[in-house]
Amino acid sequence: MNLLEDLNWRHACKRMNGEKIPQEKVDRILEAIRLTPTSLGLQAYKVIVIENANLKEEIYNKSCQQMPIKECSHLLVFASYTQFTERDLDDYFALLKAQRNPSDEWCEDYRKRINYFLEKEYGHMEDWLAQQVHIALGIACVAAANERVDSVPIGGFDPKKLDEILNLTEQSLTSVILLPLGYKDEANDWMNNLKKVRKDMKDFVNIIK
Amino acid sequence: MNLLEDLNWRHACKRMNGEKIPQEKVDRILEAIRLTPTSLGLQAYKVIVIENANLKEEIYNKSCQQMPIKECSHLLVFASYTQFTERDLDDYFALLKAQRNPSDEWCEDYRKRINYFLEKEYGHMEDWLAQQVHIALGIACVAAANERVDSVPIGGFDPKKLDEILNLTEQSLTSVILLPLGYKDEANDWMNNLKKVRKDMKDFVNIIK
Repeated sequence: MNLLEDLNWRHACKRMNGEKIPQEKVDRILEAIRLTPTSLGLQAYKVIVIENANLKEEIYNKSCQQMPIKECSHLLVFASYTQFTERDLDDYFALLKAQRNPSDEWCEDYRKRINYFLEKEYGHMEDWLAQQVHIALGIACVAAANERVDSVPIGGFDPKKLDEILNLTEQSLTSVILLPLGYKDEANDWMNNLKKVRKDMKDFVNIIK
Repeated sequence: MNLLEDLNWRHACKRMNGEKIPQEKVDRILEAIRLTPTSLGLQAYKVIVIENANLKEEIYNKSCQQMPIKECSHLLVFASYTQFTERDLDDYFALLKAQRNPSDEWCEDYRKRINYFLEKEYGHMEDWLAQQVHIALGIACVAAANERVDSVPIGGFDPKKLDEILNLTEQSLTSVILLPLGYKDEANDWMNNLKKVRKDMKDFVNIIK
């Protein structure tokens, strides 16, 4: 993989052709998302992977009238926790214990530090949780491009309707961003082969030597 | 590059050794950030790259007492726009015209759609702008790992102090997240070689066939 080549290859794919992505490619994209760093390592979101055509149709009709929703192979819904609770912290420390086995003292100290941080963020917890999802979104776009799978991040949808369709509220989740994965419809994807528009480096970066 | 290998290689590097990163590696990391997708393609943030030792020391003392701030080779500060103004839209359309040359009609229509979207986001513009930065953060971590450069995203700092030090407010910018880049101090980076803790796939992903 050449990362810059992959980033130049990708674009916001506006029309897809319905072709299925091989399972091993989907698995590697999901693994890249799972390995994404998150603040404090908490991974406070879930990824819902939708292959079901009826469900994609329902989402298109009720929450997001953009063609890739229907035409994609796999629709990823990134759904963040609506809060980060003591119960979630219990789960996190159980995982930490099982996978890395730190001392109880260390865990106690780290839990205090996490709680101190969470208290500071409490006023805008929802936004902080949504930010974490966006770290994964960037990496998911790279992972898809690396597999030569097209994708398009979609923020313009009705999250309340989508939460309803997927019963997310009762799982203490809320939809943040969508990422349809699939293959471009060469004839109708009007973004295909358009020049990528980016600021010049000198207008984007400020170097202080 | 193998993306999963790179993601497994990286960790939150807690101590760095001060060694300089070759310029071509820094350039490729910045290029990956520049190529990062953003909502509507607006790229409403800047990246400040700090090499200056005195400035890093000042930031450590006044805004963020974490060792990688001082010990890194290059400190990246991701600073989002504080608002997205009509002036910023003018700049965006000038860039679009110069790089892709769409018709005036198309631009007029697209500008309306962007304004419609921005009005919807107006109430939490700041959070929406900060989300965009986090897409780049994920890709920056991958880009660094791909160069075998260590990094550590830092959200725990005093943004008001940092904005003051870097005169960001008068540039209509605000600091969102820091990413020190450098090389690990093998003896003191306690996160080095620790097992990566991640949820099992079955607890992280929900597949709907």
